[in-house]
Amino acid sequence: MSFLGQPTETQLEKLNADFAILGVPFGSPYHMQGVASDASNAPSAVRERSHRFGPMLTHYDFDFGENLFAGQNVRLVDCGDVISDPRSLDDNKTRVTDVVRKILSQGAVPIVLGGDDSIPPLILRAYEDSEPITVLQIDAHLDYRDEVNGIRDGYSSPMRRAKEMPWVKKIVHVGLRGLGSARQQDVEDSRAAGNDLITAKQVKNQGVKCVLNAIEPDAKVFITIDCDGFDPAIMPGTSCPMPGGLDYWEGADIINGVGTKCDVIGMDYTEHFPSLDLGGITSLTLVRLMVTLIGSMLRRD
Amino acid sequence: MSFLGQPTETQLEKLNADFAILGVPFGSPYHMQGVASDASNAPSAVRERSHRFGPMLTHYDFDFGENLFAGQNVRLVDCGDVISDPRSLDDNKTRVTDVVRKILSQGAVPIVLGGDDSIPPLILRAYEDSEPITVLQIDAHLDYRDEVNGIRDGYSSPMRRAKEMPWVKKIVHVGLRGLGSARQQDVEDSRAAGNDLITAKQVKNQGVKCVLNAIEPDAKVFITIDCDGFDPAIMPGTSCPMPGGLDYWEGADIINGVGTKCDVIGMDYTEHFPSLDLGGITSLTLVRLMVTLIGSMLRRD
Amino acid sequence: MSFLGQPTETQLEKLNADFAILGVPFGSPYHMQGVASDASNAPSAVRERSHRFGPMLTHYDFDFGENLFAGQNVRLVDCGDVISDPRSLDDNKTRVTDVVRKILSQGAVPIVLGGDDSIPPLILRAYEDSEPITVLQIDAHLDYRDEVNGIRDGYSSPMRRAKEMPWVKKIVHVGLRGLGSARQQDVEDSRAAGNDLITAKQVKNQGVKCVLNAIEPDAKVFITIDCDGFDPAIMPGTSCPMPGGLDYWEGADIINGVGTKCDVIGMDYTEHFPSLDLGGITSLTLVRLMVTLIGSMLRRD
Amino acid sequence: MSFLGQPTETQLEKLNADFAILGVPFGSPYHMQGVASDASNAPSAVRERSHRFGPMLTHYDFDFGENLFAGQNVRLVDCGDVISDPRSLDDNKTRVTDVVRKILSQGAVPIVLGGDDSIPPLILRAYEDSEPITVLQIDAHLDYRDEVNGIRDGYSSPMRRAKEMPWVKKIVHVGLRGLGSARQQDVEDSRAAGNDLITAKQVKNQGVKCVLNAIEPDAKVFITIDCDGFDPAIMPGTSCPMPGGLDYWEGADIINGVGTKCDVIGMDYTEHFPSLDLGGITSLTLVRLMVTLIGSMLRRD
Amino acid sequence: MSFLGQPTETQLEKLNADFAILGVPFGSPYHMQGVASDASNAPSAVRERSHRFGPMLTHYDFDFGENLFAGQNVRLVDCGDVISDPRSLDDNKTRVTDVVRKILSQGAVPIVLGGDDSIPPLILRAYEDSEPITVLQIDAHLDYRDEVNGIRDGYSSPMRRAKEMPWVKKIVHVGLRGLGSARQQDVEDSRAAGNDLITAKQVKNQGVKCVLNAIEPDAKVFITIDCDGFDPAIMPGTSCPMPGGLDYWEGADIINGVGTKCDVIGMDYTEHFPSLDLGGITSLTLVRLMVTLIGSMLRRD
Amino acid sequence: MSFLGQPTETQLEKLNADFAILGVPFGSPYHMQGVASDASNAPSAVRERSHRFGPMLTHYDFDFGENLFAGQNVRLVDCGDVISDPRSLDDNKTRVTDVVRKILSQGAVPIVLGGDDSIPPLILRAYEDSEPITVLQIDAHLDYRDEVNGIRDGYSSPMRRAKEMPWVKKIVHVGLRGLGSARQQDVEDSRAAGNDLITAKQVKNQGVKCVLNAIEPDAKVFITIDCDGFDPAIMPGTSCPMPGGLDYWEGADIINGVGTKCDVIGMDYTEHFPSLDLGGITSLTLVRLMVTLIGSMLRRD
Repeated sequence: MSFLGQPTETQLEKLNADFAILGVPFGSPYHMQGVASDASNAPSAVRERSHRFGPMLTHYDFDFGENLFAGQNVRLVDCGDVISDPRSLDDNKTRVTDVVRKILSQGAVPIVLGGDDSIPPLILRAYEDSEPITVLQIDAHLDYRDEVNGIRDGYSSPMRRAKEMPWVKKIVHVGLRGLGSARQQDVEDSRAAGNDLITAKQVKNQGVKCVLNAIEPDAKVFITIDCDGFDPAIMPGTSCPMPGGLDYWEGADIINGVGTKCDVIGMDYTEHFPSLDLGGITSLTLVRLMVTLIGSMLRRD
Repeated sequence: MSFLGQPTETQLEKLNADFAILGVPFGSPYHMQGVASDASNAPSAVRERSHRFGPMLTHYDFDFGENLFAGQNVRLVDCGDVISDPRSLDDNKTRVTDVVRKILSQGAVPIVLGGDDSIPPLILRAYEDSEPITVLQIDAHLDYRDEVNGIRDGYSSPMRRAKEMPWVKKIVHVGLRGLGSARQQDVEDSRAAGNDLITAKQVKNQGVKCVLNAIEPDAKVFITIDCDGFDPAIMPGTSCPMPGGLDYWEGADIINGVGTKCDVIGMDYTEHFPSLDLGGITSLTLVRLMVTLIGSMLRRD
Repeated sequence: MSFLGQPTETQLEKLNADFAILGVPFGSPYHMQGVASDASNAPSAVRERSHRFGPMLTHYDFDFGENLFAGQNVRLVDCGDVISDPRSLDDNKTRVTDVVRKILSQGAVPIVLGGDDSIPPLILRAYEDSEPITVLQIDAHLDYRDEVNGIRDGYSSPMRRAKEMPWVKKIVHVGLRGLGSARQQDVEDSRAAGNDLITAKQVKNQGVKCVLNAIEPDAKVFITIDCDGFDPAIMPGTSCPMPGGLDYWEGADIINGVGTKCDVIGMDYTEHFPSLDLGGITSLTLVRLMVTLIGSMLRRD
Repeated sequence: MSFLGQPTETQLEKLNADFAILGVPFGSPYHMQGVASDASNAPSAVRERSHRFGPMLTHYDFDFGENLFAGQNVRLVDCGDVISDPRSLDDNKTRVTDVVRKILSQGAVPIVLGGDDSIPPLILRAYEDSEPITVLQIDAHLDYRDEVNGIRDGYSSPMRRAKEMPWVKKIVHVGLRGLGSARQQDVEDSRAAGNDLITAKQVKNQGVKCVLNAIEPDAKVFITIDCDGFDPAIMPGTSCPMPGGLDYWEGADIINGVGTKCDVIGMDYTEHFPSLDLGGITSLTLVRLMVTLIGSMLRRD
Repeated sequence: MSFLGQPTETQLEKLNADFAILGVPFGSPYHMQGVASDASNAPSAVRERSHRFGPMLTHYDFDFGENLFAGQNVRLVDCGDVISDPRSLDDNKTRVTDVVRKILSQGAVPIVLGGDDSIPPLILRAYEDSEPITVLQIDAHLDYRDEVNGIRDGYSSPMRRAKEMPWVKKIVHVGLRGLGSARQQDVEDSRAAGNDLITAKQVKNQGVKCVLNAIEPDAKVFITIDCDGFDPAIMPGTSCPMPGGLDYWEGADIINGVGTKCDVIGMDYTEHFPSLDLGGITSLTLVRLMVTLIGSMLRRD
Repeated sequence: MSFLGQPTETQLEKLNADFAILGVPFGSPYHMQGVASDASNAPSAVRERSHRFGPMLTHYDFDFGENLFAGQNVRLVDCGDVISDPRSLDDNKTRVTDVVRKILSQGAVPIVLGGDDSIPPLILRAYEDSEPITVLQIDAHLDYRDEVNGIRDGYSSPMRRAKEMPWVKKIVHVGLRGLGSARQQDVEDSRAAGNDLITAKQVKNQGVKCVLNAIEPDAKVFITIDCDGFDPAIMPGTSCPMPGGLDYWEGADIINGVGTKCDVIGMDYTEHFPSLDLGGITSLTLVRLMVTLIGSMLRRD
């Protein structure tokens, strides 16, 4: 079942797309259970939930006040999942970067369905030839640990790993709240590196403009969403939920704002655990946010 | 189990009521599964959930700041469900209109528990002798398709069918968002017919007054609620949920506003799928909105 | 499994703590089912949900903008549950007061995990030597019935029982809405006794300052939370949910405001039914609110 | 909802019945949780499950090869539940004996829906004027402890308590297997008291005649069923299931055999936990076994 | 997803098969809920459950002691579902007969996935040109009512309707037990018509030979299975379960016996309610019994 | 939570035990999902289910007709789980063999809680210095594939791998039925290797003696149980269930027979998927079979 019932293409050298959907059904865990945790079921859960919207893509979209695709012929292609081998876990990670690199070389914008939160650096590694990138991270947590028990590529470290890439200019962390893996030093390191830290409470108090103002117009932006950045009322299907997160319209307005004023070069979402979802609302919200991103990008100022 | 534990009366010629509750446990579907979909269980789910409030109806209501019934002797009667025959589906539809007509002729305000979203026109047909009616529709979708696969009385068409009735003056569509069955032409048709289209985002940005201003004081108003008009956080029990809908107080304020400034002549709700509900919150919210409507009508300005 | 993985101590004469956690896994019911209702499972549900935050207590807390404990050495001790005997129900109640009295005599602030809403007076009875206490009650209901079927210590009466104690100065009822057990006379009695009644709608309209202004700076405050005071979106796990309650940030801001400007001398929460919870969000929100209270108290103005 | 949709009578002095159904929705527990454990929901679960058989009672019963009631006019009356008071637990127990005594004085055979396994002695106490009684107990466990932590009327002791009554001649324990609360001394005591101990394995190896042979023809027999005597495949809804129990036909043949050759003066079942049931099979099997007992008694040899 | 992953063919004039699978996802109900009851989901549930056996069809089958297909090239084709129209319920029934007639005319043996128990006569009607047929019915119930509330083609009457067809020689009812819709007269009518009535208890006592002996060697046999004929331990997913039914090997031995000694000309199963199933065991058992039938027929004595 | 609440010891050089429990919470999969499939939760599920029997171990066991341990002082020790590293999957397998070797060197009999069905060869490898071993395998499947997609140590090959070990004398396959991964050649290879193949049907027809007769008295026996060898009525919690398997008493009698007449040198069970279990019956049956094995071994003829 493809994303939004769109065409599929797994031979990437033949890919002819504006937007390329890619599933990454695994992680890089601290414990055995994480090798193929429930987050591995996220790509198929989202694809299934998206299905009923397939025939509606040419209908009127009330959020855009007109046809979703603005009358354009948009090529949205589902490239399936990165192939994984249970007997060669390291190769799986390399393969993520390779596949994203191929998608980029074909001129498509990758939209990646994770996986745990160790995945974003594997994707960002493929952008090595890009102009400086701003990473917009929606997450309750900073994810800026240097290592956890000697592991440097786990789900507590992706933003630090990303920032270490020369082509990543800064991280805009959005939705921070409460306690997580971050220590005082991690916060200081992220600030020192020039990143912006925006708490969920700041978004509540100041509105989404505090996020939009942190990103330059026309910046190259990669959006990475950890489901726990959002409020459990709309994204309960995640392993570390925390009350007080972004609500739907905050998320949609941020994505719409960035999509129209910047140059979004890719996105992913991670930490979606379908078995923890309630009534499929997490999958549904993710689907809509991806649709909103596509619609917004077609309306670049 | 009757609604709010109130008296029942199924011999409608004997009906002596201010408000008459009526269940319509079926639909007019596009597919076999819809003939008696889970929405058919909605009337009994709502009745059961309402039960514990029965003994509290004479207590203090903090939303009204006094006794709910304002000290009046209110006759609220449950008329049971419209009888349905699995071997004569067309007759079932006619029967809805007949029963509502009888309720109206006894001077009671019908409050109808649906059913799928094909039900409202069957109800509105009974108002043929009424003064011009404004239909206030709370729904994520426009429901203004002329036909779907040749079927003109399905759940994608109720508002167009309603507007075609000479006694329906206009529709105020509230809560529109995202993608649905509506096409560009449907939107244009509805606007051309003089209806008001108010998106969920407008309600978020402008407050409920944008809805209340769209309805003339003292207008005859029929309120029809499709559960998906509301946010899934309070009405998850519906077949086509969509994040970003009306929240509880927006709904309550709209109903309270209309109830006190207009002449509400009936209401229904549809697309309630109890098996999709979470913790019964959909049923509970529906019960409270109906209680709020009754309390509001007793406080007409 | 102790609260937040902290040390335990059940020999209270040896208690050496700043904050003492205590479970009260029972109630004082109107019906047999309530003797050990699902609310009896609340203490263990909250302890289990708190466990993953144990190792994070020394991390950076984004809500406080620094280390949660503000660099202090905070002694948080879990005293287990009050022992209950199924053959001597009256003794169980006496035991609650005795145990809280011992905790107070050791200089610790009790944080009590309920139980049904008959528990707060049993706790407050232990404060007989305290200076005048303001009780901040977050609840959809007034709980001010004098008796129900002759029973005076049930869950509909705790605030009236509390107010009758000479050392309780006033009750600030917050979150009131809709219908409950309260009658007109109960409302009048509470007002006449000098209590403040603040509806959920007032908090929505005026912000949390309407609550904070109702409590004098430096007042001795006991906070009692009935889960139904909060919105079902964040506390679905309760027996009498009602839409339109306090949201997470309203609750957190009230607790933080009171914690920093007043002298909080204890707290409890009640009416948590874990089997009705959805994805553990009720437990999680309760855990965070308790963490927020502790962090706030360490930051007294 | 009455058992099998039969007439109800709660004023026992007016009782006019051949068989009287009585619910005992409580227990006499070792722990608080047991005061009103899930076994308290057993009477209503069984009543609800029995409902669809109500209109079939006059139909052909293939197990009897004719009309269930053998053409007789059988008066089956549901006496509701023993009233329970959460503030006077000891009185509840006395009330069980009193109510059964009234049923017996009206000439009806009591069929009691439990409750935990502390209930049978409360029932048997009412038979003090009876001729010597043989108790047929179907149970995985011996239930012959003298006391547990000083408690002598808990669910581990009912058969010892029963045997101590002068009017109880012997116990036939059937279905014993594996480990339970019984110790070597309990087994020896039961044997020394003249009781028969028949393991589940003996029934498998020798057939039900090893049970029927242990009971004299025309004996006065009280049948007490602990759900765990049966195999979890047909009675999963119990708190201490154990594989290898009696299957449906073994149970039905024992009940039918005793019903036709002896004088069954009452029955009960206990330890039914509806929330642990799977597809309602426990309730259904219990209903059928009670129907089978009634049909058998009407066919006394 | 086709049955056993086999080829599909919906243009029946092109059908080239030995065995033709056909789904009938509806019924002919007494109540609205039955129009598209959960039994309508049975064909897809069984197809999905069969899927993992697809690649194993050429493997060794331990029940046959060799390759399942006995080395033959067996053409098993899935013809999809009979098309149903929610606005023309009577036509749906006619269509069942038409489609089965086409399958027969192409020389294939129909294997029909129901539906409620009103379906078998619709299938048998297509055999009008056949030699005399013995219907082997596995069912807890007789299904021999002439009418129920005036309805003659509902699920309580299929065997009487079948027997009325001139080409149906006799019914062998197997698995009868307990109470159902059958009355004394229905039993007498069925016996008078020359049918055989074999109770579940007879099968337990005498073994499956009592069934096999009731059917002449080389008879034309149509097998119709109502899931409730089997024990709930292996077929819990049915609306009227009853303990004491046929176990797996009794069913398999009956099917294998009939398959090898007679000429099986078709089969169906009905009353499978997937949402009531436990762990998919009902679907799985049905799949295996169909595989066993096919394997048996390939081994005709 | 240790198995049966017994002492734990993870420093195996200090192990002082008659029986050593060991968990292996992983597998050697064909697909990513299998790396840490639900079978990884089996050890903890079984430990938790065993807990209530801990205090009963010294009680009377009705299956043995006396104290379970026959009055002996039995040292049963839980050695916890084999440590697994998500970044070095091959090392995990080696570690299983190493740990079992240490247990054997301390003179204890290992009882291993799996894991998928690739585990048994890892265990058997540790017995290299043993006298010839008979492996008693209870399984619906032969598990005798040489390789699957080039993988030789997956869950379809364990018995072939076992038989290749010089110290494994023969396999007694018990419970074979239906279709699985086995092909004609695999069956022939197993027979040619001198193994015994006993179908589930043979056990039904001939009784367990057909199994016991296949094993020489005093043979060294390793028992390996794949949950699907048993009937889904008692072991539904497995990934490939199949109706018609061994029932409880067949399993218990086989284990008891082998335990008393042979020299059991170890056992394991595999393919237990707790999330597929129904009411915990799979865990419970496994616990009892292990208890039965221990009791039987203490009663060697």
